[in-house]
Amino acid sequence: MSFRVAVLGASGYAGGELIRLIDGHDGFDLVYMGAHSHAGSVLGDVHPQLKKPERPLGGIDAEIDADLVFLALPHGASAKVGFRLTERGLRVVDLGSDFRLDTPERFEEAYGEAHPLPDQLGRWVYGLPELFDCTGADRVASPGCYPTAVLLAIAPFLRKGLVSADGLVADCLSGVSGAGRSLRDEFMFGSVAEGVRAYGIAGHRHRPEIEMALDSLLGGRHRVTFTPHLVPMQRGLLATVTAAVVEDSDGIEDCLSLAYQDAPFVEVIDRPPQTRWVVGSNRALVAAFHDGHTGRLIAQCAIDNLLKGAAGQAVQAANLMVGYEETTGLPLDGLMP
Amino acid sequence: MSFRVAVLGASGYAGGELIRLIDGHDGFDLVYMGAHSHAGSVLGDVHPQLKKPERPLGGIDAEIDADLVFLALPHGASAKVGFRLTERGLRVVDLGSDFRLDTPERFEEAYGEAHPLPDQLGRWVYGLPELFDCTGADRVASPGCYPTAVLLAIAPFLRKGLVSADGLVADCLSGVSGAGRSLRDEFMFGSVAEGVRAYGIAGHRHRPEIEMALDSLLGGRHRVTFTPHLVPMQRGLLATVTAAVVEDSDGIEDCLSLAYQDAPFVEVIDRPPQTRWVVGSNRALVAAFHDGHTGRLIAQCAIDNLLKGAAGQAVQAANLMVGYEETTGLPLDGLMP
Amino acid sequence: MSFRVAVLGASGYAGGELIRLIDGHDGFDLVYMGAHSHAGSVLGDVHPQLKKPERPLGGIDAEIDADLVFLALPHGASAKVGFRLTERGLRVVDLGSDFRLDTPERFEEAYGEAHPLPDQLGRWVYGLPELFDCTGADRVASPGCYPTAVLLAIAPFLRKGLVSADGLVADCLSGVSGAGRSLRDEFMFGSVAEGVRAYGIAGHRHRPEIEMALDSLLGGRHRVTFTPHLVPMQRGLLATVTAAVVEDSDGIEDCLSLAYQDAPFVEVIDRPPQTRWVVGSNRALVAAFHDGHTGRLIAQCAIDNLLKGAAGQAVQAANLMVGYEETTGLPLDGLMP
Amino acid sequence: MSFRVAVLGASGYAGGELIRLIDGHDGFDLVYMGAHSHAGSVLGDVHPQLKKPERPLGGIDAEIDADLVFLALPHGASAKVGFRLTERGLRVVDLGSDFRLDTPERFEEAYGEAHPLPDQLGRWVYGLPELFDCTGADRVASPGCYPTAVLLAIAPFLRKGLVSADGLVADCLSGVSGAGRSLRDEFMFGSVAEGVRAYGIAGHRHRPEIEMALDSLLGGRHRVTFTPHLVPMQRGLLATVTAAVVEDSDGIEDCLSLAYQDAPFVEVIDRPPQTRWVVGSNRALVAAFHDGHTGRLIAQCAIDNLLKGAAGQAVQAANLMVGYEETTGLPLDGLMP
Repeated sequence: MSFRVAVLGASGYAGGELIRLIDGHDGFDLVYMGAHSHAGSVLGDVHPQLKKPERPLGGIDAEIDADLVFLALPHGASAKVGFRLTERGLRVVDLGSDFRLDTPERFEEAYGEAHPLPDQLGRWVYGLPELFDCTGADRVASPGCYPTAVLLAIAPFLRKGLVSADGLVADCLSGVSGAGRSLRDEFMFGSVAEGVRAYGIAGHRHRPEIEMALDSLLGGRHRVTFTPHLVPMQRGLLATVTAAVVEDSDGIEDCLSLAYQDAPFVEVIDRPPQTRWVVGSNRALVAAFHDGHTGRLIAQCAIDNLLKGAAGQAVQAANLMVGYEETTGLPLDGLMP
Repeated sequence: MSFRVAVLGASGYAGGELIRLIDGHDGFDLVYMGAHSHAGSVLGDVHPQLKKPERPLGGIDAEIDADLVFLALPHGASAKVGFRLTERGLRVVDLGSDFRLDTPERFEEAYGEAHPLPDQLGRWVYGLPELFDCTGADRVASPGCYPTAVLLAIAPFLRKGLVSADGLVADCLSGVSGAGRSLRDEFMFGSVAEGVRAYGIAGHRHRPEIEMALDSLLGGRHRVTFTPHLVPMQRGLLATVTAAVVEDSDGIEDCLSLAYQDAPFVEVIDRPPQTRWVVGSNRALVAAFHDGHTGRLIAQCAIDNLLKGAAGQAVQAANLMVGYEETTGLPLDGLMP
Repeated sequence: MSFRVAVLGASGYAGGELIRLIDGHDGFDLVYMGAHSHAGSVLGDVHPQLKKPERPLGGIDAEIDADLVFLALPHGASAKVGFRLTERGLRVVDLGSDFRLDTPERFEEAYGEAHPLPDQLGRWVYGLPELFDCTGADRVASPGCYPTAVLLAIAPFLRKGLVSADGLVADCLSGVSGAGRSLRDEFMFGSVAEGVRAYGIAGHRHRPEIEMALDSLLGGRHRVTFTPHLVPMQRGLLATVTAAVVEDSDGIEDCLSLAYQDAPFVEVIDRPPQTRWVVGSNRALVAAFHDGHTGRLIAQCAIDNLLKGAAGQAVQAANLMVGYEETTGLPLDGLMP
Repeated sequence: MSFRVAVLGASGYAGGELIRLIDGHDGFDLVYMGAHSHAGSVLGDVHPQLKKPERPLGGIDAEIDADLVFLALPHGASAKVGFRLTERGLRVVDLGSDFRLDTPERFEEAYGEAHPLPDQLGRWVYGLPELFDCTGADRVASPGCYPTAVLLAIAPFLRKGLVSADGLVADCLSGVSGAGRSLRDEFMFGSVAEGVRAYGIAGHRHRPEIEMALDSLLGGRHRVTFTPHLVPMQRGLLATVTAAVVEDSDGIEDCLSLAYQDAPFVEVIDRPPQTRWVVGSNRALVAAFHDGHTGRLIAQCAIDNLLKGAAGQAVQAANLMVGYEETTGLPLDGLMP
């Protein structure tokens, strides 16, 4: 048996990776690809790296015939089409941010505007399968790349009470593909190569998402000093999260290993993870170091922002939604160099 | 049915890609990995990007038990072990240069020394399946990355007599992984990033190999002005070959399409091929342009030097050696960006 | 004594380098900076790397008060303002292509349109001081980056009759800044990093310029197979030019050294020049290799496309126009890494 | 009047930049260049980017005739030669770490061994002129690149009591040249490009140096959670320092501007500093953001690690040592792109 799946938002980077993964997935049949400004063109025009370049791209259409739909649309563009698809009874995985937050208040805090469908908030499963149960879900909001890495690194320690929730600092480094494929001066080669910079300081939209996930998992109200940085590489994301270790830190050494012992995509290592070790795979590498000198924990997570941080994680959730093995069609191996 | 295969030379870049491809190949069972200085360590020490990192690495051993062996060893290190394996009746694909050339004279011209096993020269199939028949072969010498791209770009035109064999110029650009993984000052990040340079001008070892292949395919004695350049990227190789078009150039437009109509890994396009479109895949993109102003043809080929230029092509040949479909276990899709 | 100079086209990459060089030039006083869409902003908005960021940018104004004006404008934007400035008696160095070609026919061949001021063609000195005399000139058309490198590499051999003018092949590699600063999808980081490609095959506008310069220097009608490639780096340009060596090649070894013995910015070396050795300097590194196997010469030239290929060369010409030492205010040292 | 200066350790990256700066400095005459393994070769062998490549390299010689000596030697190699030079009455600027720390205890904590000349510790001025007075000094220990950026970013806030000294977190990103020029597998292009990673977590040698500087400036005992990261670029260093803001934070907005109003090389900006804006210059860009949501300050500093983080800062200190204007011979402009 195979599910008929569609990708809406086929022309972006995440869309391209979704198509590649679905093409190689034995249980998913790609029956429709839709794009906005590229509707009417063919796949090879936007993704010359993919096979069967003559396949046509349709529009962003909520009335398509499919069993499961991946949405890889810009912020704000998922809400209506996503809701309509669910109304029609289709399963939906939204890679965008429209259904990730849990309350209208949180959404407004993050995005500065009211949500068009506030009733939907809280009804979509947050699709980070290592921390939130996606099994059998029919609507999944797939996490952002930064929240994925930050949460995988630090949530187990917070859950066990091994670090303080006060003074959490998350400095994150991302390759440029994390910013999507839209044409902007700041993402030109001459604006990126041979330079690093922070952006969105104290105001990035992924902060409320991280805090929402921690609140959901652990209760209470979390606050994170979150500073994303752009580094001159295409793919890869590294989160470096520090937190004060509590006095009784028994169990801190084994915390990650225990947390992820059944997680096929999370590998706990004992040296600083490198993003190059995960490019091309759906793995997350996590490691943590207890700095006795300062009494802080330094926890890290490295992912491929387009796979475990986007398309791969979406397919992982979709596998669980329809009852497949979690790892079906997903690469554990990366490419190096 | 599955063949038991081994990789000798597991620690290099091509070795890592071989392991990745074999791990994902339904008809090959990886039963042994051997390395030289890393014998005794585990896979994760040299290829942290690959799954099952605890798998052990043995030595470079010609007495191993296997059906088919891939050799990814430095120049000069394949001859004896490769020959011994064939003596023992194993099928061998050598990714090195020891068995590529056809005569002791050519070998000495290229490498400045006598071949240790001159009788073997000419007995190995040159493993470029689009131009040389590898079906059922038991010993294959897999081509170098530059010859692969140069030959795929220009051989069809020479075979049809559409361009002159005089004055062939091949300027090629390669990413750094083509130089292998050994530690050398010239391949440090600070020696490569933000710079380009030619190397091996008028003396690169791949020139005799290109000329040998052309002589074998077409008869006569070919000479190529071959200038390789190193460019600051990890993977990818682009060959730009120019040749004088003959007076009667009928058929020049369709030459590539006809030549490669049955080649699953060669895609003929009508715009300049980009290496980024093939990274991660075993495809070769070829294109040619007839410059009416100068009367020359500009033919190009882009490949991933570690896949179609090394590990992928070796698996492609191995598939044909054992009777599998040529494309088994090989990616047609690339990763981008 | 100091000349009052202006830069029109201050917001681009070449404009930024002009400002930097003039700021450090003892004989030039920067009295005006003009830009098109950034008129009304300040220098720091477009060039945060430069000092005195609060300096204002005016418009593209042909009535400014100055002694000498550098034009760094897009193709087609220089003709009228440049001509008007010369009418007003100001000295002008145009870094654009509007006045480089020598005849209306050549211009139309290159640009596909009639020149707005055909009488001006042939009245501007082609500002490559090593090959064309700029001393005392009052209007200079500064060469393109590719022509600069190609001509410096091969012109001396053609002038001495050591290589044939038939079958000239110039394969060139350029960093991305050579394409300017305008916002285009093909120059995004995700479109450039980790890939190489040719462009403008058989039709690039610099080919007629190269041929014009060779015709001017040597007489006759030259034809060059010219293929530019984009490589993933910011700065640097390498020309690899091959030509058939004539039978009597006496003097080929010393040809470059003799040609450039009095050229302060050209250094003749005996190994392949690397672009990283000239980034940040106005030097050109040239080398040539006689390939006895094929009877062809491989001549190379490496420059910083924004300095010797643009702003540096323009200042070099300006020095000669006003009677300064050619090297005044120009760096001979580069930055590495 | 001009001082005769020497560079010992001429073959590394910092040595090359010292030579370039001194060559362009009106008050310094470069009279000697010494290297270890490259003694006996010429400048062009190690720095092909520099002018006058035929200049000879001598050995590491403490008996040379000069007024002022820059030492750019590996850790541990400066102590004896530096001390001997001062004994002979020469002024010395040591770019290495041998004389930076203030006590034998701190040295042993940082380097795990006893200092060979413990009496010298505390007798060298820490050469960060914006925070420590170098005027007229005869022996200066030039700071490490990370401490330079971290201290410039956060010291003013600590000095004014605007942030808490508890829970200081410094996450820093450096280009590869910061690791020097020695041949190591981890700095190969294939090990660096397209990847990021932390290193030296909880144990980097620059942490005791940062803490020493804070203790000296402010009294007390400081502790910093310091995590350096390697990013795929050649030059540039960005420090992101976070600290808890105290309750009475009056003056936090103007703190940096006031602190650096007389510092010619420090520019206070109001957006996140980019390393690309300082490459090629001796400037430091600093900015700070008060995150009301978490109550923490995010302070940043961007420098060129080879200039303000090494050679440029050393020349800046040397200017002050001999009574020159602080900015003599130092670039305020950077190169971009």
